[in-house]
Amino acid sequence: MTRKNSTGSSGDRVDSAVAEFRESFYSGLISDVLDSLGLMQQALSPDIRPIDDSLKLVGRARTMLYAAVYAPPRPDENPYALEIQLVDDLKPGDVAVAACGGSRRIAPWGGLLSTASTMGGAVGALMDGSVRDIKDIRELGFPVFAKGIAPLDSWGRGKVIEIDVPVEVGGVLIHSGDIVFGDVDGCIIIPRARVDEVLDRGREKLVAENKTQQALLDGRLLADVYEEFGVL
Amino acid sequence: MTRKNSTGSSGDRVDSAVAEFRESFYSGLISDVLDSLGLMQQALSPDIRPIDDSLKLVGRARTMLYAAVYAPPRPDENPYALEIQLVDDLKPGDVAVAACGGSRRIAPWGGLLSTASTMGGAVGALMDGSVRDIKDIRELGFPVFAKGIAPLDSWGRGKVIEIDVPVEVGGVLIHSGDIVFGDVDGCIIIPRARVDEVLDRGREKLVAENKTQQALLDGRLLADVYEEFGVL
Amino acid sequence: MTRKNSTGSSGDRVDSAVAEFRESFYSGLISDVLDSLGLMQQALSPDIRPIDDSLKLVGRARTMLYAAVYAPPRPDENPYALEIQLVDDLKPGDVAVAACGGSRRIAPWGGLLSTASTMGGAVGALMDGSVRDIKDIRELGFPVFAKGIAPLDSWGRGKVIEIDVPVEVGGVLIHSGDIVFGDVDGCIIIPRARVDEVLDRGREKLVAENKTQQALLDGRLLADVYEEFGVL
Amino acid sequence: MTRKNSTGSSGDRVDSAVAEFRESFYSGLISDVLDSLGLMQQALSPDIRPIDDSLKLVGRARTMLYAAVYAPPRPDENPYALEIQLVDDLKPGDVAVAACGGSRRIAPWGGLLSTASTMGGAVGALMDGSVRDIKDIRELGFPVFAKGIAPLDSWGRGKVIEIDVPVEVGGVLIHSGDIVFGDVDGCIIIPRARVDEVLDRGREKLVAENKTQQALLDGRLLADVYEEFGVL
Amino acid sequence: MTRKNSTGSSGDRVDSAVAEFRESFYSGLISDVLDSLGLMQQALSPDIRPIDDSLKLVGRARTMLYAAVYAPPRPDENPYALEIQLVDDLKPGDVAVAACGGSRRIAPWGGLLSTASTMGGAVGALMDGSVRDIKDIRELGFPVFAKGIAPLDSWGRGKVIEIDVPVEVGGVLIHSGDIVFGDVDGCIIIPRARVDEVLDRGREKLVAENKTQQALLDGRLLADVYEEFGVL
Amino acid sequence: MTRKNSTGSSGDRVDSAVAEFRESFYSGLISDVLDSLGLMQQALSPDIRPIDDSLKLVGRARTMLYAAVYAPPRPDENPYALEIQLVDDLKPGDVAVAACGGSRRIAPWGGLLSTASTMGGAVGALMDGSVRDIKDIRELGFPVFAKGIAPLDSWGRGKVIEIDVPVEVGGVLIHSGDIVFGDVDGCIIIPRARVDEVLDRGREKLVAENKTQQALLDGRLLADVYEEFGVL
Repeated sequence: MTRKNSTGSSGDRVDSAVAEFRESFYSGLISDVLDSLGLMQQALSPDIRPIDDSLKLVGRARTMLYAAVYAPPRPDENPYALEIQLVDDLKPGDVAVAACGGSRRIAPWGGLLSTASTMGGAVGALMDGSVRDIKDIRELGFPVFAKGIAPLDSWGRGKVIEIDVPVEVGGVLIHSGDIVFGDVDGCIIIPRARVDEVLDRGREKLVAENKTQQALLDGRLLADVYEEFGVL
Repeated sequence: MTRKNSTGSSGDRVDSAVAEFRESFYSGLISDVLDSLGLMQQALSPDIRPIDDSLKLVGRARTMLYAAVYAPPRPDENPYALEIQLVDDLKPGDVAVAACGGSRRIAPWGGLLSTASTMGGAVGALMDGSVRDIKDIRELGFPVFAKGIAPLDSWGRGKVIEIDVPVEVGGVLIHSGDIVFGDVDGCIIIPRARVDEVLDRGREKLVAENKTQQALLDGRLLADVYEEFGVL
Repeated sequence: MTRKNSTGSSGDRVDSAVAEFRESFYSGLISDVLDSLGLMQQALSPDIRPIDDSLKLVGRARTMLYAAVYAPPRPDENPYALEIQLVDDLKPGDVAVAACGGSRRIAPWGGLLSTASTMGGAVGALMDGSVRDIKDIRELGFPVFAKGIAPLDSWGRGKVIEIDVPVEVGGVLIHSGDIVFGDVDGCIIIPRARVDEVLDRGREKLVAENKTQQALLDGRLLADVYEEFGVL
Repeated sequence: MTRKNSTGSSGDRVDSAVAEFRESFYSGLISDVLDSLGLMQQALSPDIRPIDDSLKLVGRARTMLYAAVYAPPRPDENPYALEIQLVDDLKPGDVAVAACGGSRRIAPWGGLLSTASTMGGAVGALMDGSVRDIKDIRELGFPVFAKGIAPLDSWGRGKVIEIDVPVEVGGVLIHSGDIVFGDVDGCIIIPRARVDEVLDRGREKLVAENKTQQALLDGRLLADVYEEFGVL
Repeated sequence: MTRKNSTGSSGDRVDSAVAEFRESFYSGLISDVLDSLGLMQQALSPDIRPIDDSLKLVGRARTMLYAAVYAPPRPDENPYALEIQLVDDLKPGDVAVAACGGSRRIAPWGGLLSTASTMGGAVGALMDGSVRDIKDIRELGFPVFAKGIAPLDSWGRGKVIEIDVPVEVGGVLIHSGDIVFGDVDGCIIIPRARVDEVLDRGREKLVAENKTQQALLDGRLLADVYEEFGVL
Repeated sequence: MTRKNSTGSSGDRVDSAVAEFRESFYSGLISDVLDSLGLMQQALSPDIRPIDDSLKLVGRARTMLYAAVYAPPRPDENPYALEIQLVDDLKPGDVAVAACGGSRRIAPWGGLLSTASTMGGAVGALMDGSVRDIKDIRELGFPVFAKGIAPLDSWGRGKVIEIDVPVEVGGVLIHSGDIVFGDVDGCIIIPRARVDEVLDRGREKLVAENKTQQALLDGRLLADVYEEFGVL
């Protein structure tokens, strides 16, 4: 069975927001905006880092919940069943999100899943477990954010028990459909319902930050510049 | 208000020592010399890493003490007041040092502070919190050593409560005026009063290390070489 | 005394296995094969990372056991005696393995030891302590896997108390003669007695993985591809 | 100056709620009720333990925010000024809450502060730092919950920088006026505005739990009992 | 439905072994014997502690595997289903074992489960999560070993996904049917197949330890006593 | 060979100091005095706790340095040799100090060593590893401070490599001859050379603390009392 042409499940508005986030924003700016909206816990633990820090990870979350297991699968069991189901269902713009409870025992993601995800249009993966096949993933240019790097397959160590349920990754609750934004400074989650507010305030803050930067380059003191533009 | 021409506050002797440290020394050599002087606790925790490990961070410490806070600032409060004061007062050769108690909740430093510091002649920044705007800081070529990377502003999470007081960063006590030396191998603090001793012994050890390296390249056994030069 | 021409102590079979591992395998593949043999604890903790992640570390382990010490050596004591003995005895294809109990207080390895080891034909070093002289080691192209980076010599902090004894590094028991395999995805230990089995199964799995990868690139769904080739 | 007769600052309603919590509730019950209200993050980290686990700590929070310092106070500085101010201002039913960022370097609380607090009617203390004078505090019967036990005074290690501001203790945000409830099972914070709801639902759940317990003692299977009463 | 008279599922031999372990052995002795059999990884992490350290926990393991969840159960879901199934199936001499991955977010065990388990003849519970209702459990005299104490129910935080499968608790793999032995010194797992060997060697070691103890009380030097009896 | 009458190796002055410490002081008082002498790092990590917190541990340190090992001893090796040597050499008033690098893998101390030590007049033991035979040690009334409790013998896990050398326990450097002072609030090291100063200042502080306590019990405000006596 080959992939059908996938057209994505979300409407134009979120897609264009995602495009603007990717094009013009950075995680520090988004974090500041979320702070100003009273959402101060949206940045993932700094343990979660990009495999290639020159790549941005921006898209809609699709969640998988992993459980640790301590024995090889039974002969009649496909331990990858739900994982495969989600990966084959990824739409353009989706980000595969694997919640492993911060486990360092498994690498739920690797080169083959990255290849499979890319074919369906997914734009990256995020996990609070490890990742492997770093070399392949870097060559593929597929953005992956993970808690660590390890050669360990999930076989006999963990398995997906539910998909598209709320999960916690790096200390932040993520629902399928939330916006994942990761860059070299870290990874942050924008709740789907707040996307417009974040865009609006972000555009304003971007202007103020650029003016501040220019004023500093002009040799003005930080005290003056901060008083004028109010950002730091 | 624009910056006045700053000429630096320390005398020639420390400045020339700093220049020699930067030019000829490396952190392993300095650590060995401090060990031989009985100062065995001067290297910061290996958690503190350079943002760009090709850059050296060498200069005089200027300290800031951060406290964690858990609420947005009051309307009448400038939470950045002391931080701005110190940054605007940085002299050529100064290193901004931010003691955050190892917090991973805040990034006390970022691109704008790096730009502002550079304008005044500061030569780098050191913190045991996180840093953000990695891309800008790398492009600026400004040496920053930090405990982590995170997009989180200090707004509502921390604030400077004192400047130019003794602080602890990465487990080492630092006074304003101490020499900070960081390179790819880590970061080490040279107490101001011991600078001359460190220089003298360091020059000697450098000679012995170079001879050892050459003798090994000549194919001699390590046992013989160590017996002759006494360094490893 | 200069080095004699060393010819290595292990027979042809292990040497050719090491060569094939280095040439064709990667740590994820080896981990999967060891899993299938019921050896699920052979991957070192993900804390142990390569200094240069483009280099592979593949060879026979030669172990050193470090103990922490808390005082400078006595005047009549050579604290490096056993370490020097092992380094001078390294054969072509050997990997120096330093077990430090995960200590972050010492860097048992650095540039001079790397140079000395290279001269004797050693192919890398592995430790669960820190390493220093990163710049030199990278220039030398000598593969080193370590738990951290720090400028701290072992002088007055640790010393080798036994060599060629079983040690634990990154949570895995290692005997001299075991095969160390490290690449960008991590480091894994192949017990010497299982080398042939790992080779045989590894070759098979490699074929299945390549077919899987190609099938995914052809646009087939992961569910189908996994059903056909059985690897992920 | 001696203490005036203090009559407490809060109204009757909260006081009677506190009395009922203390008399009839336990932390597990309150946690379940808060869960059912969607407040699932109100239990402090299990690191925070009672000094005497036979005592309940129930009262209104009065917060102190500590900052770490790394030098003795200046000669003209009273490092305890704010701490003393808050302790002298504690009203009957108050609980002194010291937020230390989880520091293990200081014991912000001890025997003298316990004595002073008791005299004013305070009913306990809570901190995410250490406590000392355990023997005296146990003899006094004063409920103290702390992260650890250490003989270290805060002098030269920490100081209160603000009082009656929102603080985080054991991972939970606490405002002055919130209800602190601690017993042998742990410590939980009831936001002041939710007190009535918690009381109402708690009374109901208490009945169901007692019936469940009795049914089990009657020898019925858990499956049946859970189906009938719906609590576990 | 009420409980039927349960007669236990294991044969006499294991039951009598369990009785002898409980009567005459202690965890240090068992650990030494397992060491001498080459089983050096059978002691659980010292984080796992008894709620009442005067009680011994000795019995046959019955395992439950928990997964973390991050949302309340769906309306049609009984999140306790498998947990209840196992508890209602506990036989005399069984020990309920809950593997939570070391989570501090949940207390999978509490007073009601202890009561229910006791009714069926279970002799204790072991978990690497938290436990609550400490007061009730102590009054019941039911031996519980846990990683911590917390008031947090598993509702919305975790659920049992499999029972009677191999699990890891405190770093040790446990199968249903293995012998759990816990006392004030810690908790240790005796694989079912090795019970007889452990009994035999344990009896011998017990004699030697008692003689050693007596000889020391007689005032003999440890060097002599160790030479004679060979135990320490 | 039986024990000879041991008379202790230290002079009267230290012995009488030790007696006064034990009789009249407590660890918080000693910590404050050491702080006032500029010795602010003398308290051991709060991880080090008494097995019986009603007992004081006061005496002269006798140090043992442990190294981790990962294999059973060779047939011709007595792994306990140095440990036995030190224990048999303990004098009245001595405290056995075992530095294990904070290891949780071994319990270097237990019932037999406690019995042997008591016979020679030793007054306690201190370690940053685990301890076992808690029940016996409590019955013996022998003060032991340790990092944890575990049933694991050091056999095949660790061994003493040097005795009477400087060691670090709980983060504090200890020399044989230093005074160990432990009570329910923690454990603190008084360098031998500073004993007299600590005694003198301690007596003064004790008076001020008692007056402060009395004044508080008289109902005076803490602000007034602190102003008069200057202690907290």
